[in-house]
Amino acid sequence: MSLAHSRAGHEGPARGRPRSEAVERSIIEGVMKLLEDGVPLGDLSIERIARTAGVGKATIYRRWSGKEELFVDVLRAAEPEDPELPGTSMRDDLIVLLESLRQRGLMNRSSAMVHNVYAQMKSSPKLWNAYHATVVDPRRRLGYEVLRRGQQNGELRADVDVELVNDIFVGPMLVRAVMRPESELPEDLAERIVDTLLEGLRPAKP
Amino acid sequence: MSLAHSRAGHEGPARGRPRSEAVERSIIEGVMKLLEDGVPLGDLSIERIARTAGVGKATIYRRWSGKEELFVDVLRAAEPEDPELPGTSMRDDLIVLLESLRQRGLMNRSSAMVHNVYAQMKSSPKLWNAYHATVVDPRRRLGYEVLRRGQQNGELRADVDVELVNDIFVGPMLVRAVMRPESELPEDLAERIVDTLLEGLRPAKP
Repeated sequence: MSLAHSRAGHEGPARGRPRSEAVERSIIEGVMKLLEDGVPLGDLSIERIARTAGVGKATIYRRWSGKEELFVDVLRAAEPEDPELPGTSMRDDLIVLLESLRQRGLMNRSSAMVHNVYAQMKSSPKLWNAYHATVVDPRRRLGYEVLRRGQQNGELRADVDVELVNDIFVGPMLVRAVMRPESELPEDLAERIVDTLLEGLRPAKP
Repeated sequence: MSLAHSRAGHEGPARGRPRSEAVERSIIEGVMKLLEDGVPLGDLSIERIARTAGVGKATIYRRWSGKEELFVDVLRAAEPEDPELPGTSMRDDLIVLLESLRQRGLMNRSSAMVHNVYAQMKSSPKLWNAYHATVVDPRRRLGYEVLRRGQQNGELRADVDVELVNDIFVGPMLVRAVMRPESELPEDLAERIVDTLLEGLRPAKP
């Protein structure tokens, strides 16, 4: 996956200049390479990461206060890009949001690196919380926005709780993509989930 | 939680007589107690389990071929009881199924033992698979049956895939109960999910 479009380095002026972005990128890619080679997260020292990336330890510590902060950026870089919402309708936006979760599930199956990082992250409450704060929560808020726009333009009932409805849309995809790694993720899954939900499950009245 | 109604010992004649059930129960309860006291799964030897339960090692090996087989029964005993479906309607049955997942989530939050066993199980593919085969898969098949009955009696559209619809019903509850341990699990959640889904999300036509 390309890092060029990832969120690493998109932090604005605080993280700064292009030259420094390239250095960050090579450090993050170095960590990814080590993880892909099967080195467990716990065995990665700043020293080893510095050696792999061809930089000094100080260069790393200038950007991250420690290993865990660095790993959060690796996690973010390993995520699929944030989807661009077409904005044509709530339905279309929801399909794009669910499709990005499907891609996340596919990556988790095809990339040992993503799979390992994710599995190891779960056993570190600090990493898990940081991952949620920087990746999961913003996505959830994006979902709420899409649903509220749908309520405004008449695509979604106005009397439903958008937080519950968001879980109703993402739930079935997350169950398949994340909780049941052996389940199928067919290409039209996002569209089928969204359309089935919008249509409702009761038979049409005769 | 009471073991009296759990599935442990409900295996039929193969596991046999009431006296033997009581022995099994005391062994399983012994393991639970050790886990509640914070002993990690990996540190539990058959010897220690035998000592805690006040039985000989041979008594354990007569019932389970090893630690992992015993742990699978501990996992099953720690699960909420299989719900009794009222059978009055698909809606009512689905609410009971979802409510049992909500109870599972509440237990996972309130019981350190359940939480620890579950967390440790995830890191053992063998235990994870056994848990799925003995607990999760039968529940999923029960969901399919409920949905098929709903298609037959006109409560559910006949043109939807029951496997997808099952994920649509359980997904939002699982996301809250299992994936986001900090999310709320209000008392009426099962009912709200089922009714919102049956009603459909599109505004009623004027």
